[in-house]
Amino acid sequence: MRVDAGGICGSDLHYYHHGGFGAVRIKHPMILGHEIAGRIAEKAPDVSDLAIGDVVAVNPGLACGHCSQCLAGRANHCTDMRFYGSAMRDPHIDGAFRQDLVCKALQCVKAVHKTPAELALSEPFAVALHAVSRAGALMGKRILVTGAGPIGTLAAVAARLNGAREVIVTDILAEPLAIALKAGADRVINSREFPEALVGLGRSIDVLIECSGNEQALRGALDLMAPCGTIVQLGLGDDVTLPQSRIVTGELSWVGSFRFREEFALAVDLIDSGKADLGALVTQRFALSDAGKAFDLASNRREAMKVLLEF
Amino acid sequence: MRVDAGGICGSDLHYYHHGGFGAVRIKHPMILGHEIAGRIAEKAPDVSDLAIGDVVAVNPGLACGHCSQCLAGRANHCTDMRFYGSAMRDPHIDGAFRQDLVCKALQCVKAVHKTPAELALSEPFAVALHAVSRAGALMGKRILVTGAGPIGTLAAVAARLNGAREVIVTDILAEPLAIALKAGADRVINSREFPEALVGLGRSIDVLIECSGNEQALRGALDLMAPCGTIVQLGLGDDVTLPQSRIVTGELSWVGSFRFREEFALAVDLIDSGKADLGALVTQRFALSDAGKAFDLASNRREAMKVLLEF
Amino acid sequence: MRVDAGGICGSDLHYYHHGGFGAVRIKHPMILGHEIAGRIAEKAPDVSDLAIGDVVAVNPGLACGHCSQCLAGRANHCTDMRFYGSAMRDPHIDGAFRQDLVCKALQCVKAVHKTPAELALSEPFAVALHAVSRAGALMGKRILVTGAGPIGTLAAVAARLNGAREVIVTDILAEPLAIALKAGADRVINSREFPEALVGLGRSIDVLIECSGNEQALRGALDLMAPCGTIVQLGLGDDVTLPQSRIVTGELSWVGSFRFREEFALAVDLIDSGKADLGALVTQRFALSDAGKAFDLASNRREAMKVLLEF
Amino acid sequence: MRVDAGGICGSDLHYYHHGGFGAVRIKHPMILGHEIAGRIAEKAPDVSDLAIGDVVAVNPGLACGHCSQCLAGRANHCTDMRFYGSAMRDPHIDGAFRQDLVCKALQCVKAVHKTPAELALSEPFAVALHAVSRAGALMGKRILVTGAGPIGTLAAVAARLNGAREVIVTDILAEPLAIALKAGADRVINSREFPEALVGLGRSIDVLIECSGNEQALRGALDLMAPCGTIVQLGLGDDVTLPQSRIVTGELSWVGSFRFREEFALAVDLIDSGKADLGALVTQRFALSDAGKAFDLASNRREAMKVLLEF
Repeated sequence: MRVDAGGICGSDLHYYHHGGFGAVRIKHPMILGHEIAGRIAEKAPDVSDLAIGDVVAVNPGLACGHCSQCLAGRANHCTDMRFYGSAMRDPHIDGAFRQDLVCKALQCVKAVHKTPAELALSEPFAVALHAVSRAGALMGKRILVTGAGPIGTLAAVAARLNGAREVIVTDILAEPLAIALKAGADRVINSREFPEALVGLGRSIDVLIECSGNEQALRGALDLMAPCGTIVQLGLGDDVTLPQSRIVTGELSWVGSFRFREEFALAVDLIDSGKADLGALVTQRFALSDAGKAFDLASNRREAMKVLLEF
Repeated sequence: MRVDAGGICGSDLHYYHHGGFGAVRIKHPMILGHEIAGRIAEKAPDVSDLAIGDVVAVNPGLACGHCSQCLAGRANHCTDMRFYGSAMRDPHIDGAFRQDLVCKALQCVKAVHKTPAELALSEPFAVALHAVSRAGALMGKRILVTGAGPIGTLAAVAARLNGAREVIVTDILAEPLAIALKAGADRVINSREFPEALVGLGRSIDVLIECSGNEQALRGALDLMAPCGTIVQLGLGDDVTLPQSRIVTGELSWVGSFRFREEFALAVDLIDSGKADLGALVTQRFALSDAGKAFDLASNRREAMKVLLEF
Repeated sequence: MRVDAGGICGSDLHYYHHGGFGAVRIKHPMILGHEIAGRIAEKAPDVSDLAIGDVVAVNPGLACGHCSQCLAGRANHCTDMRFYGSAMRDPHIDGAFRQDLVCKALQCVKAVHKTPAELALSEPFAVALHAVSRAGALMGKRILVTGAGPIGTLAAVAARLNGAREVIVTDILAEPLAIALKAGADRVINSREFPEALVGLGRSIDVLIECSGNEQALRGALDLMAPCGTIVQLGLGDDVTLPQSRIVTGELSWVGSFRFREEFALAVDLIDSGKADLGALVTQRFALSDAGKAFDLASNRREAMKVLLEF
Repeated sequence: MRVDAGGICGSDLHYYHHGGFGAVRIKHPMILGHEIAGRIAEKAPDVSDLAIGDVVAVNPGLACGHCSQCLAGRANHCTDMRFYGSAMRDPHIDGAFRQDLVCKALQCVKAVHKTPAELALSEPFAVALHAVSRAGALMGKRILVTGAGPIGTLAAVAARLNGAREVIVTDILAEPLAIALKAGADRVINSREFPEALVGLGRSIDVLIECSGNEQALRGALDLMAPCGTIVQLGLGDDVTLPQSRIVTGELSWVGSFRFREEFALAVDLIDSGKADLGALVTQRFALSDAGKAFDLASNRREAMKVLLEF
């Protein structure tokens, strides 16, 4: 396929600026990129459901399809996962920020209404949808999202689409909060400037979707959780110190969420059908020749939410 | 009712030795005790399902029955809970280590086969059953219990009764592990002497029931969890420092468990019918006149599992 | 309170035309009506969260709040339920089609944006929301609704608001289907005229919400269910004859849904905030003096979806 | 492998006596048998975890491992399932009542303590365990099993092992009920002779496991279900006529259960470890030369529960 557009993700930035994150380090040169969409340029003769020219979003994760995790419906825990632009394996799996990409037909999800630029958010949206699915049915629930980066904002959209009664987003910067509000949050709170607004929530939050990876955000939110509330952890920060007693006496659940499963096809479908309008998130687009500038800007949370590369 | 037997609980010991635990401190003299059973001595005329002389275990928690938590089936989060021998409220609620106790009929669960001494374990067993219920169905699952105190051992029994495929218990002392094995664990591991046996479990644990409150036990067990595994937290220790990345990438769930709900009646029923045989846990019995000696011994994990007071 | 608007429900019509439904028969004169909204006219001095003039929707079901069902969070199974305009108890509970109604403060849910006429659909919408909740999380699921009456149409809206990937509604009449489409269904199928369109769905339906009470609709839909699919039964018809083998080999779940629980307050909130726009359902409004005409028209599915009485 | 023992199943009897059941008919000669165990006689060189002479139970269902159902963890709905002794496909899949059987290593579950004769019940026990799993956690629940054939009796054992508070089994014959009681039911009721004992249960049943396929048994049990109770359907009879109103107003769930998934390995493990003692179910053993006599006797519910063939 011909790659038309690619979104720069936080993990791309970590590789770019720091050579990795946590225990995952780049050991040899690796192409970045895993949020991409484009058009079919050539296809194997036995691929019947795709035609040349079709617009497709590409699932960057290729699960083996036969390990015990795959057979249990947990492809995101595949023991032989090949994920674009990830240094988790050695040799690393190269990423998809390139003009031409050879991929499996089963990685391609076809779209008929939208452009590759609009579909490039399918992957992070799938991450957000999976996180929401980890909290169970949201009908009538009050949701707090901590961290208004792309994933947090997409989590707010995903929660809104799945029955949340109220979606509140917090961050320490006004600019991403403004985008989250535009994208569909019911309410945003600048937790640095108005900590009292957070406190005012009392213990009313049924589901927290933690997208900051920040200990302070997480600990602060613990006090806002209703009895038996669920905290979905998406943010990937350092170790966090938590009070056992709050988890125990509040019967809280702290639940990890990692990548996605069948939510990738759903993300494409929601974007393509217009049910999810993610336009507010894309703050800048750059040609490949300006990739350096794009990566620099993408690190600036005041100016950029999601930066796209166009190939 | 006439109280016949009472078990000394870890929280009783905390009040006795330290004047409280965590933020909960004794502010004025308080009678201890909440694991009790006895016989009906007198009854109100409108109580028709209990007769004088009936053996009953007494639920130490009296929920209000009309707050939003009670009406949602979460009586253990009652906003107006009155729990025997607890300093959480001020004025404190006196405990049940006394010869005569006036309680509500709905707190009494009648038994027909067993003695009060045998039924005194109903309350901690209810705690263990509730913890197991927090993990969902256990059919075919491999369970690890960290901490072979009374609650850990009872959790092993509860897991065994609810379909666990294998129940493994760890502790740093041989004596309580021997009792856990006798009570029904499939296997015990002394994690201080044989840490390699723990490591040998690989990532095979579906459900961890953490009963030690110890950070090292919890962190060590994180590495043994299968993808999407559940950790039920019962132990009430200090703050713990945990790696977000392990929670996220393993999609683990850390789930608090607090007291119990309808499991109290179930605990009495399982003991009374003989389906649960908890005899191995009772290591000593003391007359009330030897209460001081009983409290001292109960703190010694090498010699005592559960110490009963007889009134 | 002063009742301003009331919706005529199918059960009202059954009482009006046939004197009851199934085993429930009217034994003495009874006021009908349970879908109402209005304004507070007077209030008890101890009611602090309502003021005279407040617009409220009224929950027609008053659960006792202390039976075992209420305490388990299943108020819709309250053993002492008092439901407006229902002949299930004898003496019957009079309904709310009257100008002045005395009700409990806890039955009143306040609204701030919408009029009583718009809020009169809160009760049937709560029924639809509860039905959807019985199917668990709908994220990414394909939903079929059989029967495009008010409840079916509201179920389509509720499914749409709670993450359904696609909502298809079937009926044998074109007029209600047109309203369902306008209210938010992705697609409608006239099952009498285009049965082949139903067959064309294959076995792709994850959740069926059966709102017709019709055996043919239910049996026909069984063949469209994906493995392990869920059928929520809302329609209340006669006995139905079903193939055990299809239930068994498809591992289908046929799940009843009865009235609602906490969904009443949610329904009011969704209407009042504009998240749910139910305007398309209200086809006619009549003054109380034309009640006879209103009841006659409400029985005509070609002309009326939801008929409101204005008091 | 060398087949040592095989259990005669109800479906074998249907093929033997009637040439099929429901829409499934034998179109050409087919070997019967799918409940078997034996010893490894030869093995492929790349099979490292099995040795010649190992005792194994054989999973009669070979799922494809790559269809959408397999990848969703629903191997029992595999679109390309090959199941021993089943005429569901054409050409049929021959069964395993033969001395020598060539099977895949992944179908073999090794046992170390028990004999093939004891392990031959692994397959029907897996069916029972799967049925129990369909009802969710059973902790503290009251279970009714209708039909004390081998599957009903095994379902009673499975429910007992998975936390049921009380397991009641009904049938119209005394002989199988006596075996069910011996195998672990808490209580048995002859519904033909003591229908009042059934009525006496009131609406106290949380989970019904329907193993008779009989409409009268199912309809009768509907009246015994507690609000929101679950009926797991295992019995495969004709069409049944059920009251919609009871399903709706009781919010009952009627849930199909078909074959098994990972429960096969669990069944072998429970038998091999002695946690499940199924000895009471085996009423007769016959040499292969007496197969005709065995099939005739196996049809007689008064004399036979489970008849084994020895090869």
